[in-house]
Amino acid sequence: VGIINYPNKKTVFKSVTSYKNRGMVLEDDLNVTNEYYRVYDIAVIYKKPIPIQVVDVYYPARNKAVIKEAYYKTPSTTDYNGIFQGRYLDFEAKETSSMTSFPLKNINHHQIEHLNAIEKHGGIAFMIIAFQKLGEAYLVSMTLLNKYYQNQNERKSIPYKIIKENSKLIVSGYKPRLDYLKAVKELFFD
Amino acid sequence: VGIINYPNKKTVFKSVTSYKNRGMVLEDDLNVTNEYYRVYDIAVIYKKPIPIQVVDVYYPARNKAVIKEAYYKTPSTTDYNGIFQGRYLDFEAKETSSMTSFPLKNINHHQIEHLNAIEKHGGIAFMIIAFQKLGEAYLVSMTLLNKYYQNQNERKSIPYKIIKENSKLIVSGYKPRLDYLKAVKELFFD
Repeated sequence: VGIINYPNKKTVFKSVTSYKNRGMVLEDDLNVTNEYYRVYDIAVIYKKPIPIQVVDVYYPARNKAVIKEAYYKTPSTTDYNGIFQGRYLDFEAKETSSMTSFPLKNINHHQIEHLNAIEKHGGIAFMIIAFQKLGEAYLVSMTLLNKYYQNQNERKSIPYKIIKENSKLIVSGYKPRLDYLKAVKELFFD
Repeated sequence: VGIINYPNKKTVFKSVTSYKNRGMVLEDDLNVTNEYYRVYDIAVIYKKPIPIQVVDVYYPARNKAVIKEAYYKTPSTTDYNGIFQGRYLDFEAKETSSMTSFPLKNINHHQIEHLNAIEKHGGIAFMIIAFQKLGEAYLVSMTLLNKYYQNQNERKSIPYKIIKENSKLIVSGYKPRLDYLKAVKELFFD
């Protein structure tokens, strides 16, 4: 996926990259990528399970539990963490259908606080922001994120242009599908 | 909690430590301990949510989801991970009601593999094993764990005596309740 300079034109959808055509499903892409990293012993990174509050469980038989009532809880941390080249790594991944900006309401306050705490403790923290319709995903630094997050009285989103100019584009391909560790290496190891 | 040399005698239950009297609930103890570590900015360590497979969700109203059918999944990784003094840290915590040994059937194969992968990638990996009735918790190394895990044709448990002689006793107290990072420091940082 290359960088596209005319995000508002319809022709964008017709330009051919296999990645863009099948549509961006960020979570799937990250899951197969993380599996690739594990299989090839590059990194050990997992998506955390979704936090669920279980209210009622039914036992139709010994050792068999069926959850009959439960609710989704707000996550207090991020979706992904793990280890890469001896370093602790932690990130949140979000996608947007907007082609012009990333709305900050997509991130909750706990997640920003968590990522800042990780950075403070010597870990690698960032966000992956994907623009579905452009077929582009970026590794966004905490510096950029904090700057816009703390100025939400001014504007409630980060412009696409700003993200593009100040973040690493994540190269997508066949294997691994979304090689975000390449961007991590360039940003945090060089 | 001190070291008790007569685990089979009933008098053990009468010896007074507030910790033993209220009973050991390892998960609660670790949760309040991790909260303490976060509040005092010592480390950022969380318990991962329990993995649940959601089958049926009901929406009684917009933005309200009630899970009506779901099942517990076998975890592929460990329960706890995070960052401490710039290092990635990963562990599993288990308790047993046995006073003489820790049954290896309490650990699943994926968890051992995961912990070994973490160690290989430069992280800190271990297990916390708690003997409920003795009111003792130990930080057990992968070396000891692997030795017994790989010889299950010989015996299917690790003797209490072996754990006690080869592991760090985790000091319990008021704040933090179960100071396992003290044991981590002694084992991995000195």
